[in-house]
Amino acid sequence: MQTTEDAFLGGRLVVEQPARGYRAGIDPVLMAAAVPARAGDSVLELGCGVGVASLALGIRVPGLALAALELQPELAALARANAARNEVALEVVEGDVAQMPAALKARRFAHVMLNPPWFPRTASVRAADPAREAGLGETAPLEVWLAAAAKRLVPRGTLTLVHRAERLPEILAAAPRALGSVELLPLLPREGRAPRLILLRARAGGRAPFRLHAGLVLHEGAAHPGDREHFSERVRAVLREGAPLDFSA
Amino acid sequence: MQTTEDAFLGGRLVVEQPARGYRAGIDPVLMAAAVPARAGDSVLELGCGVGVASLALGIRVPGLALAALELQPELAALARANAARNEVALEVVEGDVAQMPAALKARRFAHVMLNPPWFPRTASVRAADPAREAGLGETAPLEVWLAAAAKRLVPRGTLTLVHRAERLPEILAAAPRALGSVELLPLLPREGRAPRLILLRARAGGRAPFRLHAGLVLHEGAAHPGDREHFSERVRAVLREGAPLDFSA
Repeated sequence: MQTTEDAFLGGRLVVEQPARGYRAGIDPVLMAAAVPARAGDSVLELGCGVGVASLALGIRVPGLALAALELQPELAALARANAARNEVALEVVEGDVAQMPAALKARRFAHVMLNPPWFPRTASVRAADPAREAGLGETAPLEVWLAAAAKRLVPRGTLTLVHRAERLPEILAAAPRALGSVELLPLLPREGRAPRLILLRARAGGRAPFRLHAGLVLHEGAAHPGDREHFSERVRAVLREGAPLDFSA
Repeated sequence: MQTTEDAFLGGRLVVEQPARGYRAGIDPVLMAAAVPARAGDSVLELGCGVGVASLALGIRVPGLALAALELQPELAALARANAARNEVALEVVEGDVAQMPAALKARRFAHVMLNPPWFPRTASVRAADPAREAGLGETAPLEVWLAAAAKRLVPRGTLTLVHRAERLPEILAAAPRALGSVELLPLLPREGRAPRLILLRARAGGRAPFRLHAGLVLHEGAAHPGDREHFSERVRAVLREGAPLDFSA
């Protein structure tokens, strides 16, 4: 498997990831920034890939007990290597969200985060590359991911999810009744442009009304000026400085 | 009943409405502007109050066949008087969405719009004024409103709804399966401020993916400069000039 080395958090996180297939971009870093974890908390990531979100969170908030589930052995191995290389303690468990491994099934976490595959199998063409397929296409339906996440939470524990905006009705419909206090942050590519991605946060046993936040604008300006990066100030702070992402900022 | 006269659409629509209780503001005008109706189309409004949305739509798009349902006889009478005064042909039927009157039950419409009561009865204190109560508090649950609306649509007919943003999960969960191609436009009080209201549009038999649009910013600037009106240009055109409201603009 050909891999590349990629830097996140302004170089504080360097990961090895497959050159082809699903590649971690800004979404796992934004998701990790939205998890309201504090030193001492336990965190579980479902479908961690090469570990970018868990490692970004571990670097932003020292003193967490981090665990992650990954279906593909090659990616799980990379996640372990990336954890060692970045000196973050991350327990990577191989297994399927649809059949939670015993090592995780016996435990509850203060926070669960997940960036499930983005395309329902029924509505898209299967990718030829198996790693790409499992990263992009759904192996388990969205409701299985959400139910698995909700079951691993302690009371008042938080769930954080990044997904495609067009899946929002399914996400809300599939969210287990045990989850409440749902907050939604649309991620707008630019000012006034429709969001392609959303960040969603919920709480086990939460009873606050649903909150739709004003969108987070990812890029400044009307169009990409050449190859230069023009993230908005709020996003740049998250991606380059490891700042937390406050939904109401 | 004490009433006031209020002007909409830059004075092209003048309505008499109760001085107390639910009072039509910008929401029915924005909703009417979002209905993609063309001359010759039939339109039904559920819960029309004094008729602001139906009349605003009738003025914006001449040649529609407009019908409206209203539970409260006093408001239905005002809606009829407002239709006559503004020279818009509007058929106002008295009745309950939960028991659709025969006059409407036998018919299908190209468009249905609704601005249902905003607060679930179980979660709020009953208003002392009966008209205010029926306008603000729910007499029928949201799913009854949505089911009633969906049933009145021709195939490919559109549904347009304005409601509170915090009811979004309920709205999406309650939307009958016959509806699809759902589009959501958050209404932001100001740039970067969380939406309190949402406009939702769906199509009977629609199969397009859900679309979350960038928010429509209602007011310019960071705060109200005294009593002056500072609507954004896009909103001012809708409210004062009767422009249509394009979700993707």
